[in-house]
Amino acid sequence: MFENKLVLELLERYRVLWALGHASSLMGWDSETYMPRGGVEERSVALAELSLLSRRLLLENIAPLVDKLVGVEGLNDFERGVVRVLWRDVERLRRIPEGIQYELAKLRGEAPVVWREARERDDFEKFKPYLSRIVELKRQVAELLGYDEHPYDALLDYYEEGLRDRDVRAIFSKLTPSVKRILERILSGDLYPREHALESVRYRREDMEAVNREVLDILGFPWDKGRLDVSAHPFTVGLGVSDVRITTRYEGVDFRRSLFAVIHEFGHALYDLQVDERLKMTPIARGASLGVHESQSRFWENVIGRSLEFAEVLKSTLDKHLGFTRGYSVEELYRYFNIVRPSLIRVDADEVTYNLHIHLRYELERMLIAGEVKVSDLPELWNQYMEELLGVKPKSFREGVLQDIHWSLTSIGYFPTYTIGNLIAAQLKAVMEREVGKLGDVVREMKFNVVREYLREKIHRWGATYPPRELIVRALGEPINPEYFIKYLEDKYLRV
Amino acid sequence: MFENKLVLELLERYRVLWALGHASSLMGWDSETYMPRGGVEERSVALAELSLLSRRLLLENIAPLVDKLVGVEGLNDFERGVVRVLWRDVERLRRIPEGIQYELAKLRGEAPVVWREARERDDFEKFKPYLSRIVELKRQVAELLGYDEHPYDALLDYYEEGLRDRDVRAIFSKLTPSVKRILERILSGDLYPREHALESVRYRREDMEAVNREVLDILGFPWDKGRLDVSAHPFTVGLGVSDVRITTRYEGVDFRRSLFAVIHEFGHALYDLQVDERLKMTPIARGASLGVHESQSRFWENVIGRSLEFAEVLKSTLDKHLGFTRGYSVEELYRYFNIVRPSLIRVDADEVTYNLHIHLRYELERMLIAGEVKVSDLPELWNQYMEELLGVKPKSFREGVLQDIHWSLTSIGYFPTYTIGNLIAAQLKAVMEREVGKLGDVVREMKFNVVREYLREKIHRWGATYPPRELIVRALGEPINPEYFIKYLEDKYLRV
Repeated sequence: MFENKLVLELLERYRVLWALGHASSLMGWDSETYMPRGGVEERSVALAELSLLSRRLLLENIAPLVDKLVGVEGLNDFERGVVRVLWRDVERLRRIPEGIQYELAKLRGEAPVVWREARERDDFEKFKPYLSRIVELKRQVAELLGYDEHPYDALLDYYEEGLRDRDVRAIFSKLTPSVKRILERILSGDLYPREHALESVRYRREDMEAVNREVLDILGFPWDKGRLDVSAHPFTVGLGVSDVRITTRYEGVDFRRSLFAVIHEFGHALYDLQVDERLKMTPIARGASLGVHESQSRFWENVIGRSLEFAEVLKSTLDKHLGFTRGYSVEELYRYFNIVRPSLIRVDADEVTYNLHIHLRYELERMLIAGEVKVSDLPELWNQYMEELLGVKPKSFREGVLQDIHWSLTSIGYFPTYTIGNLIAAQLKAVMEREVGKLGDVVREMKFNVVREYLREKIHRWGATYPPRELIVRALGEPINPEYFIKYLEDKYLRV
Repeated sequence: MFENKLVLELLERYRVLWALGHASSLMGWDSETYMPRGGVEERSVALAELSLLSRRLLLENIAPLVDKLVGVEGLNDFERGVVRVLWRDVERLRRIPEGIQYELAKLRGEAPVVWREARERDDFEKFKPYLSRIVELKRQVAELLGYDEHPYDALLDYYEEGLRDRDVRAIFSKLTPSVKRILERILSGDLYPREHALESVRYRREDMEAVNREVLDILGFPWDKGRLDVSAHPFTVGLGVSDVRITTRYEGVDFRRSLFAVIHEFGHALYDLQVDERLKMTPIARGASLGVHESQSRFWENVIGRSLEFAEVLKSTLDKHLGFTRGYSVEELYRYFNIVRPSLIRVDADEVTYNLHIHLRYELERMLIAGEVKVSDLPELWNQYMEELLGVKPKSFREGVLQDIHWSLTSIGYFPTYTIGNLIAAQLKAVMEREVGKLGDVVREMKFNVVREYLREKIHRWGATYPPRELIVRALGEPINPEYFIKYLEDKYLRV
């Protein structure tokens, strides 16, 4: 797998950086799950220290070797992957001075706290100075990193290697009109309800946890290599190829929220767990990109999890532990899982309207980074786009521009990876069905091992060996193509 | 608190080492509590990498400044403490080559696994080669570190700064004859039972957990700065002055084992939590030594926890959650908590016989390090000393030489700190009573804040500012003196 002597030396030196990443990930997981409140301050100092230490080690010990290896002929795919990924890291650090990195890291600690307060009090003015500074710094970062066409390209590339503004624009210009057309047709019919009685039924946390654990059993979650815990916002953390942890939340009502969070995070976890064991502790033992990662979670959550056949699979588990589902047929459960409703909040959006929320954010971010609009224009613009794209209008900042945590975490250019993930998931379904047969049948027969192995072979085992665009062509036979997603929506929502 | 410019610079540089320690401690805690089985291998690589990184940073960035500061006049106590503690760390690393450090670290990962298997199969031969290598390396370490009188001094000093073999010898030569005399008198009377019906009563884990949490409430455990979790062997980990976590175990029977583990660990946790806030993230934000730390856990576990008055305090909590204690009077509970019984296993020993177990280990370790006996002589010697000191004889290796994990963790010279802790705890009681009145009254009135504040003021807040010997004289007015412990035993066990 790795033979080149310089690469082996590089991996040897990299191991301590992997260890620092492992430690920081565990600290992040702990902060969201078990850490007592009082630990916040010391924890954030520790994380900041380790982040600066990683920067130093990368520039001092890794960079010189990477420089030697760039352009070396005769490396195999894995070796090239290692050099590519580390070169990206090194280049980024070289271009962004420590001062800016430090200020951004500090803002990542402080701004979410201010954002939370601002959202609670519905006070945009409170958050504005922080967001303004973040946008300012991110515009600087874009200039420092460099770009060919649009400054937003530089930020997109950070989360999704090689993705440019023109790609995202092309995607939405195809996707959005079709989605709006499909949405109108759904809303004029009555098969997919806009609300459902099960939304307001309360559950006991222990019962729901039993459901979630049984669902993970059914999907094939390896409990000896993972955990399920509780956090305010569900997430997955990969501490290595043999320790990947997911979380969900228990709100006590509308059980699909807890359930689909688990299935979503299972998709992320499976990716990390199925990276080739021999890549462990290397820089390519990670997903190819955020978009490819999201495609895995969306595939399990929506393509499998929200199918009629999966509702059939779930029925007995739900009836056993929740009881109150007994009065509902499989078809009723399916309808509950697939309520379509233009709504104000992205995280509550169904799979039809979800990308419209992303489209909105994309337009705003792009203009912010280009300097075409100011942070103070955002609330008004948000509402305008909301009406245009989804036909609904927020009555508060909380329901509008203050709803997402991402900007406070200094993440700009991140949102489009959600749509990339949705598109790949649908495309993956089409390609998979050519090779393993109707996914509905596979699900009904609970042959999830077939799905897991397919994903392992095509995507997971490679880690970040290939850049995302190359991995997608290798796995799917063609680049990202929104037509698959449109067809998926049409097949599911218009042909029943 | 810190004013000297060089010291401030040193603390600035130290912060990343603190962060690495924080991360490693969290990884250790996680390994024992929540980590899925599969995570073991990657976790141990990560820990080893961070340990070598710490070594490098200490030698490269800290050592030169420490060298400059050694002997500088006009430092205040805290500054001197910082220099002293770091100088000890630096000196140790300078004297022990990376190769030996690495081999010991590797053995700390492997040997406990072998030890566990050997203990299960009662097969000393299996563990022998590992223990032999550990003893060999530790003898080398003693020579490398240097000593005045006895090679064991060098190992003792690692855990208990300034402690020498002659001190330990002096302690046991006073302590052991008195303890044996007291033990004989207890065993010839009938107030303290040798067994008790409550030992075999089973409990439900949830009930016991409710007891433990309520007891921690009563003692004043700050839940916003700590946690209680479950692990195979109870322990405390201090991640900072505002995040200190303890664990206990639930065996389902003989509830005092779970309960007194909690009270013991509470004592450790309180020390870490009450270090002066201004010392946080510095090298002196830790206990003065293992012995002083153990004195705090023993004080809460035995002096307070096993008193008649505390049984009175506990009664209603036990009756509420366990129920089966309702048929027993406070006096009966007290007797159950204070069964005195010469036994084979140290961790099950009562406070009367406990130090005899330590005495045995001390004699064997000392001879091993001096090269006077070989590892293959241990089983025989163990049994011989056991009969001599406790009058009982192991029928298996498991009940004898294979019972403790410490040697497999390469800890030699550690055991005596347990006795140091027991002695200080009794001494502390005597001094405290002169100043705050009868401890029994304080406990009965549940004025645990008085005890907490007393310990904070005298011991905790100083962290490792002073070497343990100096701290003890400052706090107790005189050096460690085993007479207090002997008197404590006599008062408790012979004067009822």
